[in-house]
Amino acid sequence: MPIVKGPQVFPRAEFLSRLAAVKSEMERLEIDTLIVGNQTDINYLTGYTAKSAYVPQALVVSLKEEEPTFVLRRQDAPAAVHLTFMDRSKVIAYPETLIGNPDKDGFDAVIDFVNELDDAPRRGIGLQLGYLSIQSAEKFKSRLPNARIVDCTYSIAWIRMIKSDLEIAMMRDAAAIADAGILKASEVIRPGVREADVIAEIVAQLARGANGKAGTDLAPLYLCSSPRTGTCHIRWSEDVIRDGSQINLEIAGIRHGYVSAIMRTFSVGAPSDRLRRLHDAEVLGLEAAVASARPGATCSDVANAFYRTIEKSGFQKDSRCGYDIGIDWSEPCCASLQDGDMTVLKPNMTFHLMLGNWVDEDFGYIISETIRVTDSGCEVLTKSPRQLFEL
Amino acid sequence: MPIVKGPQVFPRAEFLSRLAAVKSEMERLEIDTLIVGNQTDINYLTGYTAKSAYVPQALVVSLKEEEPTFVLRRQDAPAAVHLTFMDRSKVIAYPETLIGNPDKDGFDAVIDFVNELDDAPRRGIGLQLGYLSIQSAEKFKSRLPNARIVDCTYSIAWIRMIKSDLEIAMMRDAAAIADAGILKASEVIRPGVREADVIAEIVAQLARGANGKAGTDLAPLYLCSSPRTGTCHIRWSEDVIRDGSQINLEIAGIRHGYVSAIMRTFSVGAPSDRLRRLHDAEVLGLEAAVASARPGATCSDVANAFYRTIEKSGFQKDSRCGYDIGIDWSEPCCASLQDGDMTVLKPNMTFHLMLGNWVDEDFGYIISETIRVTDSGCEVLTKSPRQLFEL
Repeated sequence: MPIVKGPQVFPRAEFLSRLAAVKSEMERLEIDTLIVGNQTDINYLTGYTAKSAYVPQALVVSLKEEEPTFVLRRQDAPAAVHLTFMDRSKVIAYPETLIGNPDKDGFDAVIDFVNELDDAPRRGIGLQLGYLSIQSAEKFKSRLPNARIVDCTYSIAWIRMIKSDLEIAMMRDAAAIADAGILKASEVIRPGVREADVIAEIVAQLARGANGKAGTDLAPLYLCSSPRTGTCHIRWSEDVIRDGSQINLEIAGIRHGYVSAIMRTFSVGAPSDRLRRLHDAEVLGLEAAVASARPGATCSDVANAFYRTIEKSGFQKDSRCGYDIGIDWSEPCCASLQDGDMTVLKPNMTFHLMLGNWVDEDFGYIISETIRVTDSGCEVLTKSPRQLFEL
Repeated sequence: MPIVKGPQVFPRAEFLSRLAAVKSEMERLEIDTLIVGNQTDINYLTGYTAKSAYVPQALVVSLKEEEPTFVLRRQDAPAAVHLTFMDRSKVIAYPETLIGNPDKDGFDAVIDFVNELDDAPRRGIGLQLGYLSIQSAEKFKSRLPNARIVDCTYSIAWIRMIKSDLEIAMMRDAAAIADAGILKASEVIRPGVREADVIAEIVAQLARGANGKAGTDLAPLYLCSSPRTGTCHIRWSEDVIRDGSQINLEIAGIRHGYVSAIMRTFSVGAPSDRLRRLHDAEVLGLEAAVASARPGATCSDVANAFYRTIEKSGFQKDSRCGYDIGIDWSEPCCASLQDGDMTVLKPNMTFHLMLGNWVDEDFGYIISETIRVTDSGCEVLTKSPRQLFEL
């Protein structure tokens, strides 16, 4: 039996609007066909949130067709029919014999499909070369010998940096989930509790969601505690929380692919003077960065508002202050909140204003918010108290 | 203050043994320097389990040095000192100015380091070209102009396919966690419960772990329920479990990077005849596959033992029957349990014997085990009952 279409998260008009922006860029680049391999771009253009990108698959956007065509593995095709806005005829399944096959893979099926498009091989074709292995890129080039190949690695990323109001609503829901995770952490971080048990409670909350809206996926989360507060990408340890422990927590909520992230720092017992002073400086810096974020300002402006503020308290931060966020946490790093990034902020851009500050090998502090640029300023989507949680 | 070394998961001798195998392969390939970018390979050779590979970083293995050198981002360097077996002098931090920088990135720091190695640029250098973007590969080639570049994409993957006894012990612990997740699922899948709440309970269990050993990370998990049992990579939906629902669940436990995965199918109320018959056939097929897995047999033999068995019951499966598993779930697909894969099984190879069978667009059934090839046969690491759970 055919699989039924699932409930659609966004209306058809939303996807057509996103596609119209992509097609406009295709016309500017004089390409008729765009081959999209990046899974977050595919999510953006179709609603497909299943996680099958570990094998080759691609969305083919053609100027001649209203809907794109999704070429993917046979066993993943039902999910594509179920999740995406397109007609089922726009889902092309390639056979399982292309999996684990030393001679051919799913990209051959994509190329076969493109080669059968009327005239396509003789015109411009966009590829996301930055996401392809050398072998795959060579295959596309050799099997599309008459096409003018144009690198479109970040073409869609730049378009989706500016969210629609529906996407912003989704990120607000995700932010509420992230906030619920922080609240849960403040309830369960206690002396004598294993870090893994803290994580268990938080991650369960991130799945349950907030305000009746469940988490639809789980982002990686990080708990870096004493004596590891100078690290940032350790999941958690086998330690037990102790009196005097500091815990740096980075989590995110997800709704239908959209991620809102947050960081907060927790202290079991009274924090050290150094930690307290750093927290105070960082909150002032955060407020300055938020106040500076408005249409027309640059990423550099926002970062420098933070840097200049914490310098007044005798601190500095050597890393950037964040990056654009959206589908699957970090977008492909088009915009970096750092000195010298002259990307101009526009309404409905969203950023993870990430003020983690690993000041010494064995000492760091973290705080962050997910923010949206509004018509006149900045909305902070995450709402947790900006406190150094003393537990 | 310098960060302290964390508790080491494996003894130093274990890492030196792994490195000895890699160096032996380097000698065979006549390369003096191997640049390892794949994060699971880095985990294997150093014990580094932090998740920083979304920015450039590389481990440099030199025939002249007992310990490898890890070149990574400044803010990730403390985690490398804390987690790895190497001396802290073997962790080289590159500055944060290489992040979000359009002109240079962390691979420039890696190349700088390699160019400063005595004589290295004039000899053979191994690169994992399959994991590099075209731009990064070009950079390595142009900035190492006198080196003979050898593609070593899968060199370490082939070595780590055969686990040490210590690694197998880790995978047994991970398997026990996966089993605990299946048991939890059987307790919480009930009519009226949201899928997200089922996931919350399962994922919390996967973090808490089993037998006093916590989960040290969370693998992606998948819950594909009616009417989506024909799909396989959907996380879960916003549905509520209903009377008559079928739920296909794929989860994994993780200990210190090592993953053991399992799939089971659940039925709320009595299963359909079709589902019951498919389950019975698949369990027979699973038993046949397990019985066929032994040193000297090929991947193809194991797959065909399964295929031939279920054919007797009138079923077939068009996809492969699994793949090698280890660090970070799927290894780089060196070995595929499918017809025609002539990889010969050896003791302490581990596989996810994955018998998911998506027989129709709207109907699929899943069962799997994580297995180890022993000296004379096969050990099934996952221990959950091979039942179609009726709830």
